[in-house]
Amino acid sequence: MNGNGVHGKTTVNGKTLSGKGVHGNGIHHVSVNGSLYPAKAKSRRQRWEVKPSEMSNNTLNPIRAIVDGMKLTPNPDKPMIALSIGDPTVFGNLPTDDAVLQAMKDAIDSQKYNGYAPSVGYLKSRQVVANFFSCPEASLEAEDVILTSGCSQAIDLAISVLCNPGDNILVPCPGFSLYKTLAVSMGIKVKLYNLLPEKSWEVDLQHMESLIDERTSCLIVTNPSNPCGSVFSKEHLQKILKVASKHCVPILADEIYSDMVSTTTHNCPSMASLSSDVPILSCGGLAKRWLVPGWRMGWILIHDRNDIFGYDIRQGLVKLSQRILGACSIVQGALESILNNTPQCFYNNTISFLKSNSEICFNELSTVPGLNPVMPSGAMYLMVGIDMDHFPDFKNDVDFTEQLVTEQSVFCLPASAFEYPNFFRIVVTVPEEMMVEACGRIREFCQCHYRPRSRDSNDLDQ
Amino acid sequence: MNGNGVHGKTTVNGKTLSGKGVHGNGIHHVSVNGSLYPAKAKSRRQRWEVKPSEMSNNTLNPIRAIVDGMKLTPNPDKPMIALSIGDPTVFGNLPTDDAVLQAMKDAIDSQKYNGYAPSVGYLKSRQVVANFFSCPEASLEAEDVILTSGCSQAIDLAISVLCNPGDNILVPCPGFSLYKTLAVSMGIKVKLYNLLPEKSWEVDLQHMESLIDERTSCLIVTNPSNPCGSVFSKEHLQKILKVASKHCVPILADEIYSDMVSTTTHNCPSMASLSSDVPILSCGGLAKRWLVPGWRMGWILIHDRNDIFGYDIRQGLVKLSQRILGACSIVQGALESILNNTPQCFYNNTISFLKSNSEICFNELSTVPGLNPVMPSGAMYLMVGIDMDHFPDFKNDVDFTEQLVTEQSVFCLPASAFEYPNFFRIVVTVPEEMMVEACGRIREFCQCHYRPRSRDSNDLDQ
Repeated sequence: MNGNGVHGKTTVNGKTLSGKGVHGNGIHHVSVNGSLYPAKAKSRRQRWEVKPSEMSNNTLNPIRAIVDGMKLTPNPDKPMIALSIGDPTVFGNLPTDDAVLQAMKDAIDSQKYNGYAPSVGYLKSRQVVANFFSCPEASLEAEDVILTSGCSQAIDLAISVLCNPGDNILVPCPGFSLYKTLAVSMGIKVKLYNLLPEKSWEVDLQHMESLIDERTSCLIVTNPSNPCGSVFSKEHLQKILKVASKHCVPILADEIYSDMVSTTTHNCPSMASLSSDVPILSCGGLAKRWLVPGWRMGWILIHDRNDIFGYDIRQGLVKLSQRILGACSIVQGALESILNNTPQCFYNNTISFLKSNSEICFNELSTVPGLNPVMPSGAMYLMVGIDMDHFPDFKNDVDFTEQLVTEQSVFCLPASAFEYPNFFRIVVTVPEEMMVEACGRIREFCQCHYRPRSRDSNDLDQ
Repeated sequence: MNGNGVHGKTTVNGKTLSGKGVHGNGIHHVSVNGSLYPAKAKSRRQRWEVKPSEMSNNTLNPIRAIVDGMKLTPNPDKPMIALSIGDPTVFGNLPTDDAVLQAMKDAIDSQKYNGYAPSVGYLKSRQVVANFFSCPEASLEAEDVILTSGCSQAIDLAISVLCNPGDNILVPCPGFSLYKTLAVSMGIKVKLYNLLPEKSWEVDLQHMESLIDERTSCLIVTNPSNPCGSVFSKEHLQKILKVASKHCVPILADEIYSDMVSTTTHNCPSMASLSSDVPILSCGGLAKRWLVPGWRMGWILIHDRNDIFGYDIRQGLVKLSQRILGACSIVQGALESILNNTPQCFYNNTISFLKSNSEICFNELSTVPGLNPVMPSGAMYLMVGIDMDHFPDFKNDVDFTEQLVTEQSVFCLPASAFEYPNFFRIVVTVPEEMMVEACGRIREFCQCHYRPRSRDSNDLDQ
């Protein structure tokens, strides 16, 4: 690249400058004496025409698409209760722990965390996360951790490193809509595998396996589940791993709700702790368990005991992390204290609150004619089936939930937003009295619209 | 989507469930009675073969590529001085203002900013940014502002919304390497337009214009400049706008260093304040002026007085922002206080320090034989030309700066990292005594290697 440039001579600051800059792609330009660049006969724009890119056109948010299309006009006589928002902080009843706030203020006061962190995060913070999630079956070192701007960026990086346009990924149905949003925007195809409500939302393994082909570059498993609130047993996770192993498909384990599980009935092993061969990118973050989703502190844990990802995938993640860098340095600086000093009772209190609220909701809605709630075991959601045959006033779950707002000022997200019609999702983080009131109103609404016999006389169910 | 499913009947929680879930793409699946999915004769993987995506392979960081390839072994007798790091916080001599720290702690204590912010940022925080940057010639409303995870994400979103694969963007040379890193990873071509060191790094307008074709979807202008430290005059900015207007090319104005300008000699109008027609996405953030680059608080200001971007580009930015969400909610919450309560003397002190250090560096290196520093007017950089003919010991700027580490323990970034060989960049944020010491060592190094006559007898300069 050096020494082949045409030499020009100009004066800068009273000194002689050899104009030998070599500019991009080995093309050399000189601009001394006003010499013109060739006036090419290129076609150029004659008028303004600025259009959004294909990528932005293909960035689709199904929740927004459905909610924005709904007429949400609450009953003016009843205060609105939103059971739709997957943010545990909105009602103020679930504050984070004081130790978490103190850790942040200490990080600020230290003035040690104002500069750029490495694009994958401070080594010390990565080490802290590694220690926190390391277990004998799946040990982690600092270099196995990549810190990200929220779990969303973790998922983005994981999909981005594993998949090319034209590849496909396997995504649970019902499932968190972001997987599809990200994949489709990058030209990656999405194949939805069924979860089975009658089996507490376990994976339909045969269906999942039937979708795998040679372009399947990633299997996404969300456990505990949004929107289902389900938690897979160790045995079920092993069966999923077996399918992945058989067909050599790496796993993106979305474990943002890990350890948000009703501990009396379940434990919730990580996928990685059960895998001897399948390489796993486990995505998580502070958002849910520490109740600070806005802080955008996420991570990828790289589990690769058989060296299948190897250096290349790790390096690919590092390279992708350099595009926009990751999490706020203050939160990274606070991470050690947040993970190590948050008292166990804080986690326990959250879990027992969610469990209690789930039980209130489930018990109440179980006795409502036409509704089929599925009892959750973790995360912060509960799915409710609607027996549409008994609600002839409504076309579908969107229509049903829209009218529920109109009459009762209760908003639940129609599960069409998760590509799973005839269900709706309830967020169980609302204050207990609000949950009780909302369930009462849902009962009133259903009683008002329920028709005891199906209007479809051909229905074999009858 | 509704009502066409094959009906299955199962029992969940003692209630009847019509298995009418409709799953993705209108394909309906039932899994009752263990009925198998067709065992397709698809080709599937027989062994593990996980490779990083094309996108990650194409995410190239020229600074890393060059620095990682250098043998940086400091002289053990001299403490290392790094003039290479574009982070004003590393030496501790430029702390942010107490008002900025207090704003953060207040945001934490309020507990109002733990939840998800909207993907484009809190409306109130957007309003604060709009008010801060609004001026009579280029007024801004809250909806003209999109908050991002650092200026890097602002640039990423701006390029992503304007450009499709196969398009090209015009990028300054020398220039900040991120533009190319992002563009190439998305299949967007980069055309480098020359800046002219002999004209204080003004744009070679003829060269820039010659590069425009019908696939040119964005012109990037960095002002003040990294790596040059140059600040364009109002007249020069108007000439750039005229070219953009003539060929109908929108501008991405990277103004992260806005107002970091030696105020006695320059003022630094924003591009938008001078544009009557060219639509502009101005990217900025807290990083440099408030000295907190790690906090990842950036923004896009949408200037579109002639409604050329219109609803579509704005909506495209909103959609893209939903992929991973944006800045940490705590920093967003602190933004009002940071922008409104930081005392003017804080900004002034930073600027006078940078100006003083620049002058020390420039004055010192101006008298070093074989070096051609270009006096900056803003940002925090100074570029130094190397008259390679006088340094026959070295092949190029990379070789030169590598040996400078070996002998003098001073590291400057070779400008090959900005696609501009035969220069190196000095960061002027280091403490004054370090700057003086480093310049002395550079002088010693050059005196040691300088050869008064060019070894190239064909050189017309002689």
